[in-house]
Amino acid sequence: MAYQFQPIGTIQSPFKEKFGIPRQPGLVPELRAQLVLSAPYSQPEAVAGLEGYSHIWIQFLFHRSVKEAWQPMVRPPRLGGNRRVGVFASRSPFRPNPIGLSVVRLERVRVEDGGVVLDIAGADLLDGTPVLDIKPYLPYVDNIPAARSGFAPQAPPVLLKVRFTQRALEQIGEYPEAENLESLIRRLLELDPRPAYSGKTQPARIYGMRLYDFDLRWRVDEQGVEVLELAAL
Amino acid sequence: MAYQFQPIGTIQSPFKEKFGIPRQPGLVPELRAQLVLSAPYSQPEAVAGLEGYSHIWIQFLFHRSVKEAWQPMVRPPRLGGNRRVGVFASRSPFRPNPIGLSVVRLERVRVEDGGVVLDIAGADLLDGTPVLDIKPYLPYVDNIPAARSGFAPQAPPVLLKVRFTQRALEQIGEYPEAENLESLIRRLLELDPRPAYSGKTQPARIYGMRLYDFDLRWRVDEQGVEVLELAAL
Repeated sequence: MAYQFQPIGTIQSPFKEKFGIPRQPGLVPELRAQLVLSAPYSQPEAVAGLEGYSHIWIQFLFHRSVKEAWQPMVRPPRLGGNRRVGVFASRSPFRPNPIGLSVVRLERVRVEDGGVVLDIAGADLLDGTPVLDIKPYLPYVDNIPAARSGFAPQAPPVLLKVRFTQRALEQIGEYPEAENLESLIRRLLELDPRPAYSGKTQPARIYGMRLYDFDLRWRVDEQGVEVLELAAL
Repeated sequence: MAYQFQPIGTIQSPFKEKFGIPRQPGLVPELRAQLVLSAPYSQPEAVAGLEGYSHIWIQFLFHRSVKEAWQPMVRPPRLGGNRRVGVFASRSPFRPNPIGLSVVRLERVRVEDGGVVLDIAGADLLDGTPVLDIKPYLPYVDNIPAARSGFAPQAPPVLLKVRFTQRALEQIGEYPEAENLESLIRRLLELDPRPAYSGKTQPARIYGMRLYDFDLRWRVDEQGVEVLELAAL
């Protein structure tokens, strides 16, 4: 038996592609996004009382991963990309039912032209992600201080140093739309978004990720990350 | 656009009906249940590594609630049943997409006749619940000690005293299948499963809930709960 679900809303985020998105929510608190409810769910009554919670669960669709075939084992990037674990022992987007689960900070509930927008922070979500459900984070149920985890027990421990070229700093200064853009870029790149399987031995290589409406370019050397420029798309 | 999902497994639990189920997971740790994976997902590879986690998320279908119409506001039982909040500010089963989310303790991963069964504890799930996904609980992401909640900030604070009639104790003694049945019944009833809107002013009333293959009967007076009997169905 199969069940059908209709999205109740959509994510608007600076991430226009998967590369560079932090691998779990909460790693980059500066990361601001919006959850825009869709009709007929976009009514203030449906979120009444939600403003009393500091955090919410978002159950969403991994919409860029739905067409790829399901495999019983995956290679999580946090394990270096070459150890395999069962798909149900991972948070990989390539799952039998591609439903994602992220806890994010709820900054504000806004009603605009009768519709509802939630301002959220720390979301590891692609722009355009369809949202299936929103639930309050209940500390007395969801907080389990005694929980143990197998692999990936901690946040990524080694952060790279991030420096900017003069050109990159100027371009950031000219980009008024994005609040705290320098700090956001620093936090995203210190997590080292390079694919684990690349071996990380290509110092000359220039990486690019689409952020907002530009292509963020950087490279990595012994001193850390150098942000080169915000190239137009 | 609508998305279709196929269950990956099913819950086997002592709860044959909704009445009496604890209102959140983890409230009754003695509560043992099984998650039985279905073909083609029921293979040891799909859960490899999961045994390293103490807790897992279960995303499931509120299958007894799917046919009721969606309403923008609900009356959570923890608020006494007469204050309404938005459906997205609640964990109510009556939601636009009836997808539930529960964290449970993972006791064991078993492979039986080539299929996979997870022994879980603390589940607030009805027998026969279709499971859509399993994910590991990652403490560094899912634990948010600083989270604040609006209503229902704590576990139910007032627990009822539970006593048993001689007849009930004898019946429990004759019921070998259920491990720790007396303790389980005590924990379920001290939470006071009576509907909030009943006013709780009917001391003579006998309540019944289906547990395993019997009907558990009790009443409530000034001293607390009296367990009367385990009636045959």
